[in-house]
Amino acid sequence: MELELKYDERLDHVLGSGLKIIQSPSVFAFSLDAALLAHFTYVPFHKGKIIDLCSGNGIIPILLSKKTTVSILGVEIQERLYDMAKRSIMFNKLDNQIEMIHGDLKDMPRTLGKGKYDLVTCNPPYFITPNTKEINENEHLAIARHEILCTLEDVISVCSDLVKEGGKVSLVHRPGRLVDIITMMRKYKVEPKRLQFVYPKIGKEANIILIEGIKYGNPDLKILDPIIVYKDNNEYTDLLREIIDGN
Amino acid sequence: MELELKYDERLDHVLGSGLKIIQSPSVFAFSLDAALLAHFTYVPFHKGKIIDLCSGNGIIPILLSKKTTVSILGVEIQERLYDMAKRSIMFNKLDNQIEMIHGDLKDMPRTLGKGKYDLVTCNPPYFITPNTKEINENEHLAIARHEILCTLEDVISVCSDLVKEGGKVSLVHRPGRLVDIITMMRKYKVEPKRLQFVYPKIGKEANIILIEGIKYGNPDLKILDPIIVYKDNNEYTDLLREIIDGN
Repeated sequence: MELELKYDERLDHVLGSGLKIIQSPSVFAFSLDAALLAHFTYVPFHKGKIIDLCSGNGIIPILLSKKTTVSILGVEIQERLYDMAKRSIMFNKLDNQIEMIHGDLKDMPRTLGKGKYDLVTCNPPYFITPNTKEINENEHLAIARHEILCTLEDVISVCSDLVKEGGKVSLVHRPGRLVDIITMMRKYKVEPKRLQFVYPKIGKEANIILIEGIKYGNPDLKILDPIIVYKDNNEYTDLLREIIDGN
Repeated sequence: MELELKYDERLDHVLGSGLKIIQSPSVFAFSLDAALLAHFTYVPFHKGKIIDLCSGNGIIPILLSKKTTVSILGVEIQERLYDMAKRSIMFNKLDNQIEMIHGDLKDMPRTLGKGKYDLVTCNPPYFITPNTKEINENEHLAIARHEILCTLEDVISVCSDLVKEGGKVSLVHRPGRLVDIITMMRKYKVEPKRLQFVYPKIGKEANIILIEGIKYGNPDLKILDPIIVYKDNNEYTDLLREIIDGN
């Protein structure tokens, strides 16, 4: 089908998927984090509903569509990103499975109803809003990276509202916020059950965390096997290749 | 010096230390956990005071004595273990540096005063007390392993009471309790700052966690490099050898 690319957009391959996605270096380009979250998260296969918050250019719904036949709803507050996501979904002929909403995640429990989703995924902004001087001067990137339009507590409270009892909430974030994430998940009754750490190399600190909780779940956390990104010779590890290839 | 061994006790080498310790298979034998905690924890070198709770046969004070010249106080509630610790300390001529108290950790803030220690270490009982049928029938082992005489919340609240403002609390535990530990540390104003996971092998879930917090610290958690115990060929990794050798 015909695809319109706007501004500095380009059409990138989604590795290992046969799918393509519209990206823009000045607005949003998906990173390893999205692939890691799509690999990590539980996914309902044939029954149920998935919602992805802070969807950006739609990369997580697009990646999840390879793993499940259930309907996926993406929510993005930035109109330009929402528009990129819509066009990528159309281009990949995924519009029967994936729907996008242009809106604020904080409105979603009221708009969509509470407790309707089997899985809520989110790759939220990572950084607490700094003072205006330090913030990324590109507004699109700043909103995607900093807690400008939603705080971590907003994200977790909305995830909790949207997910069913017994349903799952999966997030990707940075180690510096793990304590906040765990205390807030418990506060909002999403018990952390699976945690996985991503280390750039053996001998290095983790730089990415993956966490999944169950609404009203019983306390019992598992810490999954470590994901090591690079071997000593700076090549990707086999596990990372599998993740990038979408297995 | 003369050493009296009682019952089924034996005198074991503390690997890599040149020290020896009294152990007893029916009462308490130290495990990798103690070596991991001694390796992981921050230690004040020349100034300050250390207290170790749930000391068992004194393994952690004995291991820490190799890393610091400051005084170390061990607290153990079981008289037989306390007695083993005392004799090991005497045998190693560490009685100038290490003191043992036979008592309940819950009494220590009142007995010793609040906010006096630069470091509190603890390798607490790991398991929530099951019903009496399932519990380990050996009372000594049961007390060391199950939360019979103190709960996790007792441990963390006492650690918080004993440590100075800006001082550190270091614990070793199991992944299943990480969420409880993090939420309780925050509740008792010991902000988690360093977290390290021990994986039996690449590709396996973590089975030991090491966590250190700072009293009234600012939120900012680091997740240290992964400790992998065995290589693919089932030999210890180099890092694990270093830890066992006390480096």
